[in-house]
Amino acid sequence: MAIAYDSRLGIGAAPNEWEQEILNQFSGQKVQIWPDISNPEDVEYLILWNTIHDPWVDYPNLKAMLSLSAGVEQLLRDPNIPTDVPLIRMIDISLSVGMAEYVMGAVMRIHLGHHFYSEQKAKHEWGFGQLDLKLAKDRTIGIMGAGELGQASGEMLASAGFRIQYWSRSRKEFDYATSYAGDGELKTFLASTDILVVLVPLTADTTDMINVDFLKMLPKGASVINVARGRIIKDEDLLACLDDGHIEQVILDVFRKEPLPAEHAFWVHPRVFMTPHISSITRAETAVPTIRSHIKAFENGHVPKGLVDRTRGY
Amino acid sequence: MAIAYDSRLGIGAAPNEWEQEILNQFSGQKVQIWPDISNPEDVEYLILWNTIHDPWVDYPNLKAMLSLSAGVEQLLRDPNIPTDVPLIRMIDISLSVGMAEYVMGAVMRIHLGHHFYSEQKAKHEWGFGQLDLKLAKDRTIGIMGAGELGQASGEMLASAGFRIQYWSRSRKEFDYATSYAGDGELKTFLASTDILVVLVPLTADTTDMINVDFLKMLPKGASVINVARGRIIKDEDLLACLDDGHIEQVILDVFRKEPLPAEHAFWVHPRVFMTPHISSITRAETAVPTIRSHIKAFENGHVPKGLVDRTRGY
Repeated sequence: MAIAYDSRLGIGAAPNEWEQEILNQFSGQKVQIWPDISNPEDVEYLILWNTIHDPWVDYPNLKAMLSLSAGVEQLLRDPNIPTDVPLIRMIDISLSVGMAEYVMGAVMRIHLGHHFYSEQKAKHEWGFGQLDLKLAKDRTIGIMGAGELGQASGEMLASAGFRIQYWSRSRKEFDYATSYAGDGELKTFLASTDILVVLVPLTADTTDMINVDFLKMLPKGASVINVARGRIIKDEDLLACLDDGHIEQVILDVFRKEPLPAEHAFWVHPRVFMTPHISSITRAETAVPTIRSHIKAFENGHVPKGLVDRTRGY
Repeated sequence: MAIAYDSRLGIGAAPNEWEQEILNQFSGQKVQIWPDISNPEDVEYLILWNTIHDPWVDYPNLKAMLSLSAGVEQLLRDPNIPTDVPLIRMIDISLSVGMAEYVMGAVMRIHLGHHFYSEQKAKHEWGFGQLDLKLAKDRTIGIMGAGELGQASGEMLASAGFRIQYWSRSRKEFDYATSYAGDGELKTFLASTDILVVLVPLTADTTDMINVDFLKMLPKGASVINVARGRIIKDEDLLACLDDGHIEQVILDVFRKEPLPAEHAFWVHPRVFMTPHISSITRAETAVPTIRSHIKAFENGHVPKGLVDRTRGY
């Protein structure tokens, strides 16, 4: 069993940590680490991120490609990436847990009026009694996307008392949440959502999905959290809805272009809180063991969880 | 059964809502509402807040006093308040739920580095990879006070994955948390706390308890959330520990004097986030039914939960 790790365009932080964890977890195996891949024909399992710079190294004998990223849309668009080799995306416990924690913090920030109280402090105003402080039980969180990340987030929010509803392509069953499915139920889902959490994968269908018509289906005063992909939202439409008062607060972790360009209006909008794509960081300590178990599944003739359906796009 | 509601120095918001809810819940009963208390000798049950302005009306035939506030320290210090009449403090479901939500939001704000990312945004800096983003499982929340509010908060935090430890006067049993008790275990409790949540009642023992010696027992980089009473913390000591870098973030909902005086350093300190005593708002819709069940308990010869021990101070 031979493995290669091609880290090009991986996360910027701590690349050595990843190489070290991969070497540790696969000690005793043949592991080649980019750029020292001298025998690409030996490689059966290729560990990679969401994208590869040209030139693509030709690995003629791959059994599988294993992404360290939950989103794989850039790999699917890359004409160099072989389409006849199984591609597995990351479904990692620390990834869903980290996402759920991020979403909980974002929802609580909106729910508890942190932005309002920061502004009050800046104005030296006490501000008691000025905000309608609802309890979580009176606030509906609408989560778009009912996959691993959406479910982990919804479960944590439900345990904090929020009303949860999902919207996804196909209907699901939850004991703690309502499930809406398909285009026909989108309007009903949005009309009853106070805080929208975007957690759908980026596909042809979801690109630019959140435009002004979509946003106007939310009730006035709703807020939006995007932790999926920047290209799902039309930025100018979101800004227009913020400025005409229809949308109250926006929390963004992902952007059409990252890092967010210096001239972008999000940088200076007072009701936009943003973070630099940190909502679900893949952590070496849990992700590499997950990759190892995926490879073991392949070796035993099984297909691991996270196999990408190229037609569906995730 | 005759009831009076003396709303003097109650919460500022929506006083009519409270009178209306009390009249609704006790319809058919004899209810006098301050200032229209023409027959104080008729009153058996007095509903009040945490303090009463002079002059105290003499109610010679009280069976019980029922506070709408969880904290009763001002009533206990008031020389006019009769000491031979049972005093019940508010233990209300929406109060603990609201507190738990507030504490969750405050802990998440610190845990996820919201302050850091706000500063990055103000500086137009992307800031990826600059913060050590731990998971909740690697963060210990130390809760001082293991009463109703502390337990509701700790349970919600535990369900979000945080490590929870309590410190209280006497040892308690929790399946989700460690219990430290008494002065002898305070140091161990503090040394292993990343984020301290203050939820002890204000008593002679806890007044000024959080001073520089106390704060230095926390590890460097710890953060402090006070949702109990302002007089538990020595403000100048807390500010000194913020400024020498020992304490990282402070979130305050309560202050020695409220509203916080205009000249106070908290207003302008960048690492202090504050709210105007809103962490657990008593809500008429749930608190008045609680009072009604307390009165029913008295009428049936029982003592309701929340009976204040005047020696202990809560």
